[in-house]
Amino acid sequence: KNKTEVLFFPDKKVACINYFTSECENESCSFSHEENSLSKLFQFIHNAVKSVDVCVFVFTCTDLADLLIQAVGRGVSVRVITDCEQVDIPGSQIWRLRSQGIAVRTDNSSFYMHHKFVIIDNTRLLNGSFNWTRQAVTGNQENLLVTSDSQLVCLYKERFAKLWRQYKTK
Amino acid sequence: KNKTEVLFFPDKKVACINYFTSECENESCSFSHEENSLSKLFQFIHNAVKSVDVCVFVFTCTDLADLLIQAVGRGVSVRVITDCEQVDIPGSQIWRLRSQGIAVRTDNSSFYMHHKFVIIDNTRLLNGSFNWTRQAVTGNQENLLVTSDSQLVCLYKERFAKLWRQYKTK
Ligand SMILES: [Zn+2]
Ligand SMILES: [Zn+2]
Repeated sequence: KNKTEVLFFPDKKVACINYFTSECENESCSFSHEENSLSKLFQFIHNAVKSVDVCVFVFTCTDLADLLIQAVGRGVSVRVITDCEQVDIPGSQIWRLRSQGIAVRTDNSSFYMHHKFVIIDNTRLLNGSFNWTRQAVTGNQENLLVTSDSQLVCLYKERFAKLWRQYKTK
Repeated sequence: KNKTEVLFFPDKKVACINYFTSECENESCSFSHEENSLSKLFQFIHNAVKSVDVCVFVFTCTDLADLLIQAVGRGVSVRVITDCEQVDIPGSQIWRLRSQGIAVRTDNSSFYMHHKFVIIDNTRLLNGSFNWTRQAVTGNQENLLVTSDSQLVCLYKERFAKLWRQYKTK
């Protein structure tokens, strides 16, 4: 359960969100039913029971937005920090998340809020180069380091809390 | 020596490369002589004795290029992997590194070679959102997770080796 691992991208195929979070009844489904890096990320979010704190520069992946919205429906606390200049780019999921009641805060500067990490249930950290975009899944060379090291989780929790206090809701 | 830590950016001031790697004799030096995240990164590279394997999307920071060139001068093996579309941007240090005999390999695709990690002496990994640019030092919100966890170091070593084999020297 507390295994340290690394999710490397690109995946060869996009993982089927249905298959990895409930079941896939589409017999001609073109998405991957074999475990890969995205399917593991799906499952980390799907298995959250208390909180998901996302701090990510770009967020355009609809599947990952779906999982956050489902998490809120299960009673999980979801917070998102992103870069103010990425909020309105084509495909951005930020306004959709906000419309579903998820609190999103952004920096207010021309510099980048460039982190790409997520903390799950205050006990697991995923951190690396991975933006929450489709291109990062099947195109780019990317990594997400997964750790339950309590010292590391704590340092990123503190940083998230600091930025959350500092940034305003739009 | 094997402490786990996180370097968070931005720093308030750019660290003085002279002060943190030898001495600074400039009495009116405007760079920081107080330890910060960049000064720690300087020291990790400066203290390398065997190898520095850099895998980073954007590399424009002259101080970090200087440190790699100095490392080669000490007999340290230095290898760099970067994104092919970033090689010729303004301020890129890649051709300067190559002119000093440092082997640089790149992807050959329109997707991003988006990793931002460095492995020092095959025993320490620094990984996160931090590109090797001045903007990332004093402007952006960035992180570099520092670990000597041998399992993690090994996974990133293997990924570096795989990309190194796959990519060609320009
Ligand atoms: Zn399916
Ligand atoms: Zn100085």
